[in-house]
Amino acid sequence: MKTTFVSIFIALVGTNLFGPVRCSAEDPLASWRDGETKTALIKFVDEISSEGSPRFVPQPERIAVFDNDGTLWSEKPMYFQALFAIDRVKAMAPSHPEWRDKEPFRSILAGDLVAALSSGEEALLEIVTATHSGIATQDFTKIVREWLTTAIHPSTGKRYTQMVYRPMLEVLSYLRSRGFKTYIVTGGGVEFVRVFAEEVYGIPPEQVIGSSGKVAYEVRDGAPTLVKLPGIHFIDDKAGKPVAIHYQIGRRPIMAFGNSDGDFQMLEWVSSGPGPNFGALVHHDDATREWAYDRASHVGKLARGLDEAPRRGWKLFSMSKDWSTIFGGN
Amino acid sequence: MKTTFVSIFIALVGTNLFGPVRCSAEDPLASWRDGETKTALIKFVDEISSEGSPRFVPQPERIAVFDNDGTLWSEKPMYFQALFAIDRVKAMAPSHPEWRDKEPFRSILAGDLVAALSSGEEALLEIVTATHSGIATQDFTKIVREWLTTAIHPSTGKRYTQMVYRPMLEVLSYLRSRGFKTYIVTGGGVEFVRVFAEEVYGIPPEQVIGSSGKVAYEVRDGAPTLVKLPGIHFIDDKAGKPVAIHYQIGRRPIMAFGNSDGDFQMLEWVSSGPGPNFGALVHHDDATREWAYDRASHVGKLARGLDEAPRRGWKLFSMSKDWSTIFGGN
Repeated sequence: MKTTFVSIFIALVGTNLFGPVRCSAEDPLASWRDGETKTALIKFVDEISSEGSPRFVPQPERIAVFDNDGTLWSEKPMYFQALFAIDRVKAMAPSHPEWRDKEPFRSILAGDLVAALSSGEEALLEIVTATHSGIATQDFTKIVREWLTTAIHPSTGKRYTQMVYRPMLEVLSYLRSRGFKTYIVTGGGVEFVRVFAEEVYGIPPEQVIGSSGKVAYEVRDGAPTLVKLPGIHFIDDKAGKPVAIHYQIGRRPIMAFGNSDGDFQMLEWVSSGPGPNFGALVHHDDATREWAYDRASHVGKLARGLDEAPRRGWKLFSMSKDWSTIFGGN
Repeated sequence: MKTTFVSIFIALVGTNLFGPVRCSAEDPLASWRDGETKTALIKFVDEISSEGSPRFVPQPERIAVFDNDGTLWSEKPMYFQALFAIDRVKAMAPSHPEWRDKEPFRSILAGDLVAALSSGEEALLEIVTATHSGIATQDFTKIVREWLTTAIHPSTGKRYTQMVYRPMLEVLSYLRSRGFKTYIVTGGGVEFVRVFAEEVYGIPPEQVIGSSGKVAYEVRDGAPTLVKLPGIHFIDDKAGKPVAIHYQIGRRPIMAFGNSDGDFQMLEWVSSGPGPNFGALVHHDDATREWAYDRASHVGKLARGLDEAPRRGWKLFSMSKDWSTIFGGN
């Protein structure tokens, strides 16, 4: 009687109630459209993680590296950390009256970003120094956290952490379920990305590698403190990426994901390893749901990668064709 | 009948057969003599890893950092990596005829280390540059591995990797069994220590933090290569240790183990955390089984740490009193 009741219950509502859930649990890449790209990704992971496979890779060597800007979240109209820095200039302006007559601050406060950034790298360095140094690392973390929970993207109206790519979150989870350690290797500031990486990507601070400014250890009034100083410690971009991977991971990853020529050397390094490897570039070709850009873009420029991907065996992840959904976390 | 036979069997031989094995399996710190130090270590780990304990620390925050030279293995008569460098000078001498007339190489080749190192840091930097740069990182790894499998310590006659401290290996395993991530944070070269850290300490390359020279990424005849260059990238010693922990781990560890004043700031940083924490210094006070040194030693000088350990709540691990065995891996 009991059994019958359960059977009838399952027969009546089971497929509706549990069907979709089971289906989603069974497809770890549910936001990926069926096709060559998704098949290649699954095939590679299956081969290297299946005991007895000729291409089996032991678990400790299953390391995957991901660029952040443009690979895990958006980077338009400019890197989100640059938008953070601009917001910081505005927030800090009341205690910096001298900025009213000093570029690039004057133009930022007047809302003219093009003028503010017209002197290029020099202006950028001044903005970063003003907003990212002279502060204890723990206070910087608090400021970034506060900004992430309140700031709104200028054109989408979303919070920045809502502009992460659901298909890439699925790749991260999928790889971890197959024994991978997932790392971020970003040109962005390591202290900035760590604030949200664990909650949003499931990547702990020790697996975030990024650019960094100088940091000093000081005992201030008896309290040990790490202070962010002006000056660059390391730029984790282009040829800096394989170098940073060497310093911090100490072995060659077997999977690398990027989206721009800043990731070229990282993919090149990973895909020249002696064993199985997988390189992929997210291609921003979806002007409707995100942005469409590559060769001519001032952020996320992708030219050499696009030219050489085919002969190097790197996959292109087409946002418009391969992804059924673009944004969203869990 | 069956039950009775089993009972009798257990009663007759159980305690003899399984007793010692069970005992050893049950004591994760078998090379530690019972006493205050061992009790404190176990009490701390129990408290922070027991669900429901008021001092419970979630697993991702269970990070423990270990100095290497003098904390996990010996450092006399000088740092083993310095002995490696000296052996390298001798091995490389045939292709460097100019060294016959050039200090510090001339003195090294004549077997006079005191003279070789008389000019201090400058001589050391010349030796390190000559032996640790101008080489691909993968070739350097091979050379270190070859040296570790053949070289013999001048006074003990042991291989260097046999001069690791068994009680500290037990601490490493014990902490990992309680959910800790164990890290090395060494003043030694990161590329040197990584060669044996996984096999000897169970610590993977990505959990070894150390000093490093500059490294460049180059494509040589089509082959991507990481090349060790002359020049310092980072010195992971003294105040550099908390800074390196910040760069690479990104959160404050809750346990720190060192042996010299080079570890002072690392212990200070860890023990000023907001939650439970544990700092300890290995005290080399066993001239019979290892070496006895602290305030006056040119390697592993321990003076400030010895003075301040009591009021900072740091434990001293007395090699002579706390450890029943000194050397040996599994």
